[in-house]
Amino acid sequence: MADSKNKAAKLVGITVPKETNCGQWYVEVVQKAELVEYYSEISGFYILRPPAMHIWNSLRKFFQSHIEGMGVQEASFPMFLSATSLAKEKYGLHNISSVPVAVRPTSEAVMYPYYAKWIRSHRDLPLRLNQWNSVVRWEAKQTTPFLRAREFLWQEGHTAHLTEELASKEVLEILEVYAAIFEKLLAVPVVRGKKTEAEKFAGASWTSTVEAFVPANGRGIQGATSHALGQNFSKMFGITVEDPDKKGSHIHVFQNSWGLSTRVIGVMIMVHGDDKGLVLPPRVANIQAVIIPVGLNAKTKPEDKAKHMEQIQELKTTLQTAGVRVQVDDRDGYTPGFKFSDWEMRGVPLRLEFGLRDAAASVVVTSRRDNGEKGTIPLAELATQVPALLEKIQEDMYTKAAATFESRRLKLTEWDRVVPALDSRNVVIIPFCEEIKCEDRIKELTRSEDQEDENGRKMPGMGMKSLCIPFAQPDGLVAGETKCLNPECQGLAKSWTMFGRSY
Amino acid sequence: MADSKNKAAKLVGITVPKETNCGQWYVEVVQKAELVEYYSEISGFYILRPPAMHIWNSLRKFFQSHIEGMGVQEASFPMFLSATSLAKEKYGLHNISSVPVAVRPTSEAVMYPYYAKWIRSHRDLPLRLNQWNSVVRWEAKQTTPFLRAREFLWQEGHTAHLTEELASKEVLEILEVYAAIFEKLLAVPVVRGKKTEAEKFAGASWTSTVEAFVPANGRGIQGATSHALGQNFSKMFGITVEDPDKKGSHIHVFQNSWGLSTRVIGVMIMVHGDDKGLVLPPRVANIQAVIIPVGLNAKTKPEDKAKHMEQIQELKTTLQTAGVRVQVDDRDGYTPGFKFSDWEMRGVPLRLEFGLRDAAASVVVTSRRDNGEKGTIPLAELATQVPALLEKIQEDMYTKAAATFESRRLKLTEWDRVVPALDSRNVVIIPFCEEIKCEDRIKELTRSEDQEDENGRKMPGMGMKSLCIPFAQPDGLVAGETKCLNPECQGLAKSWTMFGRSY
Repeated sequence: MADSKNKAAKLVGITVPKETNCGQWYVEVVQKAELVEYYSEISGFYILRPPAMHIWNSLRKFFQSHIEGMGVQEASFPMFLSATSLAKEKYGLHNISSVPVAVRPTSEAVMYPYYAKWIRSHRDLPLRLNQWNSVVRWEAKQTTPFLRAREFLWQEGHTAHLTEELASKEVLEILEVYAAIFEKLLAVPVVRGKKTEAEKFAGASWTSTVEAFVPANGRGIQGATSHALGQNFSKMFGITVEDPDKKGSHIHVFQNSWGLSTRVIGVMIMVHGDDKGLVLPPRVANIQAVIIPVGLNAKTKPEDKAKHMEQIQELKTTLQTAGVRVQVDDRDGYTPGFKFSDWEMRGVPLRLEFGLRDAAASVVVTSRRDNGEKGTIPLAELATQVPALLEKIQEDMYTKAAATFESRRLKLTEWDRVVPALDSRNVVIIPFCEEIKCEDRIKELTRSEDQEDENGRKMPGMGMKSLCIPFAQPDGLVAGETKCLNPECQGLAKSWTMFGRSY
Repeated sequence: MADSKNKAAKLVGITVPKETNCGQWYVEVVQKAELVEYYSEISGFYILRPPAMHIWNSLRKFFQSHIEGMGVQEASFPMFLSATSLAKEKYGLHNISSVPVAVRPTSEAVMYPYYAKWIRSHRDLPLRLNQWNSVVRWEAKQTTPFLRAREFLWQEGHTAHLTEELASKEVLEILEVYAAIFEKLLAVPVVRGKKTEAEKFAGASWTSTVEAFVPANGRGIQGATSHALGQNFSKMFGITVEDPDKKGSHIHVFQNSWGLSTRVIGVMIMVHGDDKGLVLPPRVANIQAVIIPVGLNAKTKPEDKAKHMEQIQELKTTLQTAGVRVQVDDRDGYTPGFKFSDWEMRGVPLRLEFGLRDAAASVVVTSRRDNGEKGTIPLAELATQVPALLEKIQEDMYTKAAATFESRRLKLTEWDRVVPALDSRNVVIIPFCEEIKCEDRIKELTRSEDQEDENGRKMPGMGMKSLCIPFAQPDGLVAGETKCLNPECQGLAKSWTMFGRSY
């Protein structure tokens, strides 16, 4: 973090607009909303604070219950692997005791030798294990909380199947759960699709992905990926079973791996946050509503104030009983205005203001964090209307973000419109031949000046890369006729592919 | 693991009696019941397999819901700490990139600098954070799955309070939750108490503990500890608040830390297991009941068999609907007898046998894992009687273990009876002066030959150490009169203290 940013981070409130300085805006929001603390001991590491852990645990519970229903079991493998198991050039190695060991960047090399040991017969299939842990990747690039950290929390699922068909079915089933996490919990719209050869996980046969979009800078951002590994790893690790249909002959199993990390929290912050700070979708907010007493002042009689505060505690109890995660801000010495800004910065979805006049009228005044809309709710209806309003906020946040993403995903058939579209903060969907070389060339051809990275630094020359080949293909591609949009490419288009500048 | 053990581990079933070779028995049970797999890459590391993770997650859910109710929040701190933060002589250090870093053995040094930053006013208190993670301790001693592993899962709670009284209250509140985990979930009786000066956590003001007992070898085993850190760390890390009663003067906060690790699973295995293998308490068993078809043979008509297997699936559905975690063993090519032994080895609490004659009589035959007791349950009552029987098993397992521990915890007032009591696999409760030097001397005086460690190796000379000063003090100690039982000690007894050979 630059010194100037450190200074800004100490001021109350968010000091820069999201639109013009997305990078610094982000760094301020994550710290001031107390999602993370920078770990000063070692750069690229972050402490996840309670509001961030609440979000992560919400997603974790949702995902865990889904995969349990699918029959996936939980395991825990060691964090270290020996030097011989890891490509030395790729990750940092170090010595503990006399054994050279590395902390896992991912667990294929830790787990698959045991898959080879445990899978002896087709009756041992499917083997489906998931673990929740943290992994370490000694990133050389600029690190950013959630989006690129040297240690991050994730789940990694690793499964083995008898047939390619069974494996493929699971890849897409998991992708749907990931999509639901974005859409239903984080209120973030995503495009489901397949990665191109250039962008797929190197060890995979094919990679499915959910891709999100950051309107403030028009960049695409990968949400989560689910990989069909085919037989690549089973051949490497010797994971075979006897063919149930052909005694004596062996089949290499078909494997999948799939992972969701705390990166998703970064995506959510980027999509929903505004110049006042964080905006949390109600379903993942650790505090969904905050009650703030208003209109009390030096002239208020102590007994009136006491009675009023007592009534606020009753409102809190009513809401808690209704399942609302609610807090009262009864701090002395702070004005209501200060409190409003403070909770807005922290992204609490709903503010409930309650003054003496409101008490007399038997209502609370509501203020939505997502759109600033005000309203009133009769006290007698708090227990039903507040949960309903929170659900409405959740829905509206998704609908708004989906409409934005929709309008900024341009289906183009003229090459000359591509770079201007990117410069106007869109992603594009274009006819594409799906060739690696062509994709490399497209990246070069679409470089332009004055882009900035997630930390607000100018990054001249950021070209677009493919985000995914959407499963929902638009119309208009004529097989054997439509050409790849790259003017230098002579190939035919295989699909509409979504491209964009990206994280 | 010695070669001879490797061979034995490959034979079906447990090959040694628990009583005579507890160490090897344990090593076989944990592997054959598929709780762990030894990690061959690096010694002292173990893979936790689904049945072990099921136990851990049961405890985790229970504990998490209790501490949430207390207001403890979740956080996640980095796994690495810099060399300057860690006593170099104590833990393994290594280099990643250019920064010398170590993997946390525990997180005081990682967390407390941020406590100093976050705690500015008494309004920031109490600060109560817990994290679930894994820690690494490069043990030089012989490692054993669960009981002493170089990496293990745990939770570590770290809290800060304004007063010593508030802090102490929490220490004991947490200890009660730990005790409940042992007693209610693992069916393991524990003695609650305080560690002596010799045995407390070095950084603590005092340490509370729950202590369990392994009847097979008469050794005590520490369950979990909850520490009152006093101001030791707040002075070291400068964690202060302004005294609310005295402007301008500062108070060092009072801290606690408390941890529960996967070691508890090892304690449970040791307490309940028998010569047939693992015995799981129903509340933490991933499979609570297994249905095994019996009496089918080559003469059974295929349509009769199909109808029977269909009925078994119905029984399974009935039980699942009643909340029972049940599995059907419909493997072909295995005799019922083999299956009985297999599930007994895996510790499944309840076996349900179902044959053609049982179907005709509309009953299932039950067989309890804990005591071998047989019975029958009418099909119409499965949904109520199976859950009730599982609860009965849970209770009986606790009652039996508690009676054993009770009878093997000898209150002694004659020194000469101490070593014979230990040799007969008891722990002892004796009048003790609580002095460190005296405790050291007691350890020497009680050494005797022919003890074995948890891996079955002869360990001549294991003396007894203090396990705890039980909170429930027996009668009979006369203040200023009763002497410490150590014949060489001139001191007066301060308490009845529980001593024993131990893990």
